[in-house]
Amino acid sequence: MPDFNAETHRSSTAVRDVQGDTDTRRLAIDQVGIRGLRHPIVVQDRARGEQHTIATSNIYVDLAHDRKGIHMSRCVEILRRHEEVLTLAVFARMLEGTASYLDASASHIELSFPFFRAKKAPVSGIEGPMDYQASIEGGYRSGVTDVWLKVVVPVTSLCPCSKDIAEYGAHNQRTHITITAKAGAGLWLEDLIDVAETEASCDLYSVLKRSDEKYVTERAYDNPKFVEDIVRDVAAALKRNRHVLSFVVESENFESIHNHSAYALLRHHGKS
Amino acid sequence: MPDFNAETHRSSTAVRDVQGDTDTRRLAIDQVGIRGLRHPIVVQDRARGEQHTIATSNIYVDLAHDRKGIHMSRCVEILRRHEEVLTLAVFARMLEGTASYLDASASHIELSFPFFRAKKAPVSGIEGPMDYQASIEGGYRSGVTDVWLKVVVPVTSLCPCSKDIAEYGAHNQRTHITITAKAGAGLWLEDLIDVAETEASCDLYSVLKRSDEKYVTERAYDNPKFVEDIVRDVAAALKRNRHVLSFVVESENFESIHNHSAYALLRHHGKS
Amino acid sequence: MPDFNAETHRSSTAVRDVQGDTDTRRLAIDQVGIRGLRHPIVVQDRARGEQHTIATSNIYVDLAHDRKGIHMSRCVEILRRHEEVLTLAVFARMLEGTASYLDASASHIELSFPFFRAKKAPVSGIEGPMDYQASIEGGYRSGVTDVWLKVVVPVTSLCPCSKDIAEYGAHNQRTHITITAKAGAGLWLEDLIDVAETEASCDLYSVLKRSDEKYVTERAYDNPKFVEDIVRDVAAALKRNRHVLSFVVESENFESIHNHSAYALLRHHGKS
Amino acid sequence: MPDFNAETHRSSTAVRDVQGDTDTRRLAIDQVGIRGLRHPIVVQDRARGEQHTIATSNIYVDLAHDRKGIHMSRCVEILRRHEEVLTLAVFARMLEGTASYLDASASHIELSFPFFRAKKAPVSGIEGPMDYQASIEGGYRSGVTDVWLKVVVPVTSLCPCSKDIAEYGAHNQRTHITITAKAGAGLWLEDLIDVAETEASCDLYSVLKRSDEKYVTERAYDNPKFVEDIVRDVAAALKRNRHVLSFVVESENFESIHNHSAYALLRHHGKS
Repeated sequence: MPDFNAETHRSSTAVRDVQGDTDTRRLAIDQVGIRGLRHPIVVQDRARGEQHTIATSNIYVDLAHDRKGIHMSRCVEILRRHEEVLTLAVFARMLEGTASYLDASASHIELSFPFFRAKKAPVSGIEGPMDYQASIEGGYRSGVTDVWLKVVVPVTSLCPCSKDIAEYGAHNQRTHITITAKAGAGLWLEDLIDVAETEASCDLYSVLKRSDEKYVTERAYDNPKFVEDIVRDVAAALKRNRHVLSFVVESENFESIHNHSAYALLRHHGKS
Repeated sequence: MPDFNAETHRSSTAVRDVQGDTDTRRLAIDQVGIRGLRHPIVVQDRARGEQHTIATSNIYVDLAHDRKGIHMSRCVEILRRHEEVLTLAVFARMLEGTASYLDASASHIELSFPFFRAKKAPVSGIEGPMDYQASIEGGYRSGVTDVWLKVVVPVTSLCPCSKDIAEYGAHNQRTHITITAKAGAGLWLEDLIDVAETEASCDLYSVLKRSDEKYVTERAYDNPKFVEDIVRDVAAALKRNRHVLSFVVESENFESIHNHSAYALLRHHGKS
Repeated sequence: MPDFNAETHRSSTAVRDVQGDTDTRRLAIDQVGIRGLRHPIVVQDRARGEQHTIATSNIYVDLAHDRKGIHMSRCVEILRRHEEVLTLAVFARMLEGTASYLDASASHIELSFPFFRAKKAPVSGIEGPMDYQASIEGGYRSGVTDVWLKVVVPVTSLCPCSKDIAEYGAHNQRTHITITAKAGAGLWLEDLIDVAETEASCDLYSVLKRSDEKYVTERAYDNPKFVEDIVRDVAAALKRNRHVLSFVVESENFESIHNHSAYALLRHHGKS
Repeated sequence: MPDFNAETHRSSTAVRDVQGDTDTRRLAIDQVGIRGLRHPIVVQDRARGEQHTIATSNIYVDLAHDRKGIHMSRCVEILRRHEEVLTLAVFARMLEGTASYLDASASHIELSFPFFRAKKAPVSGIEGPMDYQASIEGGYRSGVTDVWLKVVVPVTSLCPCSKDIAEYGAHNQRTHITITAKAGAGLWLEDLIDVAETEASCDLYSVLKRSDEKYVTERAYDNPKFVEDIVRDVAAALKRNRHVLSFVVESENFESIHNHSAYALLRHHGKS
């Protein structure tokens, strides 16, 4: 499904098929566009200024009931028109530019990408990269643009009940804390990561030496949390951040004693 | 995170941790429970009465702000309490039973499973199994129970623009039509599959002989549809079905000329 | 790519395209067939006789250098010809039947499916389903048929180093032990699962009550194993089983202190 | 499972557990290390010199029967020791460095990453990024180092039988051609991509205008290939490349008329 000039394409199709650009089914489409396009991007990085990464993108607009189709390839081209470093402001312009370029009244874009931070082990101080799956998502409609930052932060959770009832030990496991935050100006992905890592039983590292492993083992044991505790503690911290306008926090604990997860989700509708 | 009798568990934890069952963070949780549990189920099958399959399930309840946690293992047990053939009515009872058993005001359940139909090749009549990914999802809150059926139907789409502009041939590809329908009594998964297969450029088969391949090739070529056409034609058909109360229809075309998909989504809020 | 009678299809194609069934590139193909076909099957179950499940299947044959193509749809039909309860003997016949039906000198088949066991919690005795991803794989060539059973067993691993160096606690996590065993007559999937669950720090359950959670927490702490220990202990047990002719054992520990896995693999070439 | 100095760690564990560094199970381990570590890398790019991307890495060594474990965190550190632009020569040094640093007799490494090329549409000449999943893999043992390049190239395949038997049209679909090539000095990922794109029915683009879509539609129709033809034609081209020492070529066609794939694999053992 290629791009084309509206006057040439849809009309030429239309001659044979559907009498011009007009659609008569009287059904507007909420979202139409491209999905799963992979491309390199450069994102903001609080510590280093910028960071090269790879996005997988979905780019949609709405379509009025009386129009047959969109210019699909313009969804790809919109990415090339915004190849600068991706900031909240650039993304907002991309949303507005997409609606405009595709002659739509609304747009919706999701860019998902790995994000890295150099992170020092807690005792030895040895540095290694820590990876997170992040995204920037948002919509434009009727002059209003919303931008959300989302990040999946892998952490450790340690079960309070297990600690309480066992003579020794406590089951713990990899957990994914996902924060989706409506972003006010000045919000960084790193802020969301910091909240998740602070509120977990313990955070993760790519390199740990002997002294570090002692530290993270004991810290998790000293800091047990149910899945319910994690989403509440993250929520409480996010509510204190004035750059977070609304949020959803999820925690999925890949239980080490089960073959399923414990999961919780907490939504907060804040300032708009 | 195990089950336990409320009187023993949360109190014993509470002695050390949080002064009883009470949580003081004043943050209610929207959804808490289990995710990704795999288990065998038996579902209704219009042609054969019933069908054995494997579900992957998410079972959640809400949690009041002043309660520390849920009895997580009851989410697993609820499945065993409803081991009969899964119908819309059984699922509605499961939703209500979950809220009740976990002493919650709301519940939300998603059971996702492969679903099969024996399908005859269009010319040779040779029969083979055709697979679909289906789910039954829903929520209970304040005495109101909603049940949705969802199914991903793999089909062929053939591009009208490609057909129009090329001297010969037309690009076509695997497409996933996803219908999520709020189910009135009497709605079958098979109804949704029939709509998606009828409205695609052509439907798929597990076994095709030479005569069948001629048929499906020509049928797709005779029946080109943009991703926009697919969601509109499916939507028009669903609106005519009185058992479908509301719906979302999506089409993802895994374009054979690109390494990304064309995608469209159309929502209809009907009767409640 | 449909089936057809060789005399009609390839010849008719050949008339126009390639002068008959003969291929002149002088390149034999090692494997050609279908991949990712989903269909219901019934497998043997030591406790209950049989079990309904869903397979995802790959079915391949080889192709001589001078032949243009295979009859692709026969790969689907071969499944219908072997719809009885899947045993090692039935699978061996399927391998031979595939080579024969597709007029090939070799065949290779992989059927992968969820497999369930009813499992009692260790203290309370409450029963729930435990799920495993299993497969039966094998090849036929020159009159020799090999059949392998494979199963991914999710368990708990607890780190000996963490236990040793920390004042209290020890990191533990979900681990996948994968056993791929060349099967002599009389080998059951359940035998492989038993070995993996016995040799792990602790095994998993779908339902655990308070008393059970105490048990599994303490058992894992009493039974720490490195990823190296797990593959060695499983290997030692498999070598004692006369029905296991050769094997590969893998352990992937989804470390709760890292965002990557620890992994080990041990191969044993035994009797053929 | 952290790193540590050999003299402190294993001995301290050993005091309690296993009497020193010695393992008595008499079972050597083929591969042990880390799996699924994500980290940024810079790879060679024939057109632009270099390219930033994100690798997911597995790093393994072997372990002698009489040694209890490896220094797991050294597998992470090895990446930091080789942070230069990734070339075949750098990768070979990384393999040897890993065996040496972990005091092993063999190592095996797999780095998998998205790889991009700027690609011009065939008629309009409009440029857009095209993405491929690539990897560099290899092993070191007894002074011998082998390096393999692997790339998954998404293309279009068009079925010759469908074209032949239908009055008009022909089914076509997204296809993944995977080439795994033992790399002699001077082999580029781009060489492998070029072969796959040349030998497919047609190659893919991220942006296509109306004139381009006409071209790709007609080119695919003019160039029908069975899955068997694709692997043979790619193999023939690879055999002519003196930098390709051995190879495996696979083609998976996501059939637009079925919900499963057609698949073929061809191995060539060339110069060592």
